[in-house]
Amino acid sequence: MRIGILGLGLIGGSLGYDFRRLGHTVLGGARRQVTCDRAIVCGAVDQASTDLDIFGTVEVVFVCTPIAVVAPTVAALRPYLQSNTVVTDVGSVKSAIVYEAAEQWPLFLGGHPMAGKTEVGIEAAQPALFAHRAYVLTPTEQTSPEAMAILKPLVNSLEAEVFVCSPENHDRAVAWISHLPVMVSGSLIQACLHEDDIRVRKLAQQFASSGFCDTSRVGGGHPELGLMMARYNRTEVMRSLTAYRAEIDHLIQLISQEHWDTLADTLAENHQARDAFL
Amino acid sequence: MRIGILGLGLIGGSLGYDFRRLGHTVLGGARRQVTCDRAIVCGAVDQASTDLDIFGTVEVVFVCTPIAVVAPTVAALRPYLQSNTVVTDVGSVKSAIVYEAAEQWPLFLGGHPMAGKTEVGIEAAQPALFAHRAYVLTPTEQTSPEAMAILKPLVNSLEAEVFVCSPENHDRAVAWISHLPVMVSGSLIQACLHEDDIRVRKLAQQFASSGFCDTSRVGGGHPELGLMMARYNRTEVMRSLTAYRAEIDHLIQLISQEHWDTLADTLAENHQARDAFL
Repeated sequence: MRIGILGLGLIGGSLGYDFRRLGHTVLGGARRQVTCDRAIVCGAVDQASTDLDIFGTVEVVFVCTPIAVVAPTVAALRPYLQSNTVVTDVGSVKSAIVYEAAEQWPLFLGGHPMAGKTEVGIEAAQPALFAHRAYVLTPTEQTSPEAMAILKPLVNSLEAEVFVCSPENHDRAVAWISHLPVMVSGSLIQACLHEDDIRVRKLAQQFASSGFCDTSRVGGGHPELGLMMARYNRTEVMRSLTAYRAEIDHLIQLISQEHWDTLADTLAENHQARDAFL
Repeated sequence: MRIGILGLGLIGGSLGYDFRRLGHTVLGGARRQVTCDRAIVCGAVDQASTDLDIFGTVEVVFVCTPIAVVAPTVAALRPYLQSNTVVTDVGSVKSAIVYEAAEQWPLFLGGHPMAGKTEVGIEAAQPALFAHRAYVLTPTEQTSPEAMAILKPLVNSLEAEVFVCSPENHDRAVAWISHLPVMVSGSLIQACLHEDDIRVRKLAQQFASSGFCDTSRVGGGHPELGLMMARYNRTEVMRSLTAYRAEIDHLIQLISQEHWDTLADTLAENHQARDAFL
């Protein structure tokens, strides 16, 4: 199959490695010639160009750009594609992308490979990044079955665990397990910074070990990532944060009123429930 | 030196290994004979007994019991000790222990080795558990300088990083970096359980990966641990939780009012600030 990848960063480059290894011909696109050259040298693509007409012969295009420019990119691709080309994206929010992108291209089907690492760019790309990780496809009622029929086996061939759900359910689910943790964790760091006794703040920094380290990890990550979540999944992030605040309120009430039995039950429930998420 | 260890679990047993290796004579005490026998067999103590008179000849006693029984244990020890014996404990909160314990024994000095692992009991004890970890000593204005003069070098010999501060500053600092993370992290699990659309909850469980795993780890830990923190460090846990709730309120406000620049600044501050805690 001839596969196009527009945007040759961590995700785009990693898709390229896998698809080439599977015997496909991979055509890459990037804004800068230097990125195209690097992708060719490192073997992530067969050919690459800064010109969109490289995608004129492909059966599928993976748009691997930042969330904000997915729909405009699909619009820009339109004049270059054959009418039966399937277009997908890799953005970590879906409702904010898929309806707008589908207006630009009827054979659009949103996707979200839930794989990543701290490093970014084509240099960080690697084979088998998606193996044994969730890869979510988010059809709407308007999505053509052909798009699913072509894309699903392709994603499956990456050895990813494929899930299919609506963009809305995707965004609600990732709000809980990906976006809310970033907010919860960042607020922990923020709260610690508000200790105004400088000796205590210093002691806290000196005493912090694995518990603080793990709980604060995602909140101390790339600021752009947290901003993107809040901005493009705003409704669901607000919904989960509001539910979370109610839990904090409840906890404060239990501790202030010394309801130790209820607190013990809650903590035991958390202990039990976590396994289902691992 | 002749050193007593009362309570032969993870911490008591690990102290025993280190002190014996350093050439001291270690006398252990436990409520059950089977624990005494195990501690002798595995080499954590030279001798052990269920009878407190084993501590009649020691220069220092480490009380390694649960927090709730430290002060009563010091009271029980009183008839058996020489008048110049220094007594310390290993509890993870200090104000709730040290004043009461010091009333029972003038040469009491509170301590908190900030080392641990998930496993408990004498079987989990190991040499060098305290090496390169914080070990906090918490004198009050009434604490005798002799107690510090004897205990500090002993703790130092464990290769621990020794900190000296008041019980109040200790409890405030650990509230931020140890107790608050447990509450924050547990409330994340609790909030996710309140998603009432069962399909979404299932998807969330399936999509959860390292970010959720790390952020929820300490909140999904032993329920007794969280309960103990809330109960015995209640004032400071309430203070940190209240400050934390204000941060969550602020975040909700920023997102609902779409103050993206301020949110970006906050997230960037978190990213920067975390390093000081690692």
